Amino acid sequence: MDTRSEPTLDRLDAKAQHLLFTGARTANTFADTPVTDAELSDIWELAKWAPTSANSQPLRVLFVRPGPGRDRLVKHMNEGNRAKTASAPAVAVLAQDTEFHTHIPTVLPFRPELKDVFAGNDTMRTSTATFNATLQAGYFILAVRAHGLAAGPMSGFDAAGVDAEFFPDGRHRSILVVNIGHPGKDPWLGRLPRLPHDDVVQWI
Amino acid sequence: MDTRSEPTLDRLDAKAQHLLFTGARTANTFADTPVTDAELSDIWELAKWAPTSANSQPLRVLFVRPGPGRDRLVKHMNEGNRAKTASAPAVAVLAQDTEFHTHIPTVLPFRPELKDVFAGNDTMRTSTATFNATLQAGYFILAVRAHGLAAGPMSGFDAAGVDAEFFPDGRHRSILVVNIGHPGKDPWLGRLPRLPHDDVVQWI
Repeated sequence: MDTRSEPTLDRLDAKAQHLLFTGARTANTFADTPVTDAELSDIWELAKWAPTSANSQPLRVLFVRPGPGRDRLVKHMNEGNRAKTASAPAVAVLAQDTEFHTHIPTVLPFRPELKDVFAGNDTMRTSTATFNATLQAGYFILAVRAHGLAAGPMSGFDAAGVDAEFFPDGRHRSILVVNIGHPGKDPWLGRLPRLPHDDVVQWI
Repeated sequence: MDTRSEPTLDRLDAKAQHLLFTGARTANTFADTPVTDAELSDIWELAKWAPTSANSQPLRVLFVRPGPGRDRLVKHMNEGNRAKTASAPAVAVLAQDTEFHTHIPTVLPFRPELKDVFAGNDTMRTSTATFNATLQAGYFILAVRAHGLAAGPMSGFDAAGVDAEFFPDGRHRSILVVNIGHPGKDPWLGRLPRLPHDDVVQWI
């Protein structure tokens, strides 16, 4: 029996809530401690299970290690993000696959014809790619934290420049860059305020 | 000391990984077991901590309980989703606040002038709202699971109809509807395949 196939519905304990949500923080500095390729692979192997519309899974991940690849990425980051990315032992460039629908017969075997529906409707295909890749970016950030690593997600970069640099065939569009590593010296800002509950939540 | 303020960086244990990712499934039927308002509030109180660009927090949550409100929602769901939503003991309509920037002086106190930058740039304001609310929708789904509840996220609904019904002033735009409850009879489909690792992950 594949033990992963049967859901259990306990509650997440306080320690795990702390790790992923209540105690987690965006890291702004990183220690020299390396992040292994196995850790990076495992992050994806966890994040991949969370749900997407029509099981579309449009997110793609480019893991960037220290060296020439990271140097190529750093130059496309906004100035205020360059030092962070330049010191991160690993960085993930998260992108949406604009041709994700070519995989539909594999990922949605009971409805393969949806591939052609997406192929014929650019607006629906693009909105599905953007929305679901972004959902998956949220899962990805929490999956980094689930591996005992600090995440530093950043929207401040030249997406067109990153795409030209790393995805020259035009199929992938970058949506977020995430520094990954062990926190360095003075890694966290003070906790910024969250909106009051009643400014966010309504009831009916 | 606020114990939430200091990150810990252990790894998420297998049981918690199972609850949120590896063993979790989208529920298609729900038991009659109620979901309390306290549980729903707690879901948001967990999800709210995960990060957004410039701490912008553009997601808004409308919790819909059984009764006339749920009936008003069901009619805007795609036909294939109506029975699910009609039987869910709670439903969350997730929306982006197109005027999220009015809160910037509160949520980003060291850079209050960003409020006016957003006010003067519709394209940036909208893309920030859409991207970050969608990230937060991903966090929200995992926060439902963290509370021992099954989530049923659905993109299949008439967003313009939902917005006219529940957000008539035009400020909020719905992005996702999430059924919430305890699984009912035959709640899960067979696990759908995830893309092979090498179709998603690249390295440099």
